[in-house]
Amino acid sequence: MKAWSVKASSYVLENDWIKVRSDDCLTEGGHEIKPFFVLEYSDWVNVVAITRDRDVVLVRQYRHGLGETTLGLPAGVLEKADADPVAGAARELLEETGYCSDDMRLVATLSPNAATHSNRIHVVVARDAYLVQEPTQDPTEEIEVVLATIGDATRQALDGRMMQVAHVAAIILGLTAADAFTATGRELQRDEA
Amino acid sequence: MKAWSVKASSYVLENDWIKVRSDDCLTEGGHEIKPFFVLEYSDWVNVVAITRDRDVVLVRQYRHGLGETTLGLPAGVLEKADADPVAGAARELLEETGYCSDDMRLVATLSPNAATHSNRIHVVVARDAYLVQEPTQDPTEEIEVVLATIGDATRQALDGRMMQVAHVAAIILGLTAADAFTATGRELQRDEA
Repeated sequence: MKAWSVKASSYVLENDWIKVRSDDCLTEGGHEIKPFFVLEYSDWVNVVAITRDRDVVLVRQYRHGLGETTLGLPAGVLEKADADPVAGAARELLEETGYCSDDMRLVATLSPNAATHSNRIHVVVARDAYLVQEPTQDPTEEIEVVLATIGDATRQALDGRMMQVAHVAAIILGLTAADAFTATGRELQRDEA
Repeated sequence: MKAWSVKASSYVLENDWIKVRSDDCLTEGGHEIKPFFVLEYSDWVNVVAITRDRDVVLVRQYRHGLGETTLGLPAGVLEKADADPVAGAARELLEETGYCSDDMRLVATLSPNAATHSNRIHVVVARDAYLVQEPTQDPTEEIEVVLATIGDATRQALDGRMMQVAHVAAIILGLTAADAFTATGRELQRDEA
């Protein structure tokens, strides 16, 4: 399908944290849509880190949008200083959890919400992750690191306890790419034995 | 973890399409965070509809946030007139695709982004879906209905071709709840045979 043509565009909210663009659009079928609001953010990274003991490194954190404490993946904003998504993922993983890995790779680039967001989410898998230091978190972040077995992390993603859609998608794609998701049945059996 | 306390709150952008709230917050640890922006939307529904022929009902649509045409699930805003998420899902499924189902149920309620969004995404599964009418879409939506085998829909979700994180999460949770995801291996073998 053809992209809408944009007849006029302006920013209606623009600061260090949020940028809202208002577009006046014309669809392929000739329908006028104005205004249409687009949220512009830098790209984000989500990290699926599997330790040498085959645990997944998760973080528990209060999230003010939802107003609840949620369990999810180490994640953050890809910064200009990051050479690429894998470098950004390595930085976020280290900052938030103190873990690093010598075996990291990009497995997918997804959209946080194609209707509203211009940016992307890069899903990076880190295998054989190991603890190298205390987390060096921003003091306002107040993050608790939680290790979960692959089976338990998978269950939390599949039964809705892991609430954020990006983290659910990333953990399943990440474990699949790391050949750990196919092992879930065995992990589940081991857990439940 | 304790919710941040909100010392002041106001709307910095508020119209029929988008509502941005600015909060001045104090964290559990006593750190001041101001402003913190929250996106307020009505709840959304994502529908995983499996037809009597065991196909998944998908939609292809241009999405102006991302600026690309994407393949995803029937989805929309839960309206005040909808009795519950299942009723909203049934309405959206019928409007966007012309399909209905006598066997629909809510399988999970997730967060589009716990950091930034106040609303929820309800994941509804529709089994034994069947075509009852032509789609009655809003003319500005320009949606193409696509049927995919369960195996192909799963592959598109797992390999990153289905880009929207909410749809990836919903399709995997939905197929798991409908006992179709565990059948994926068999579906894949059948597809590839």
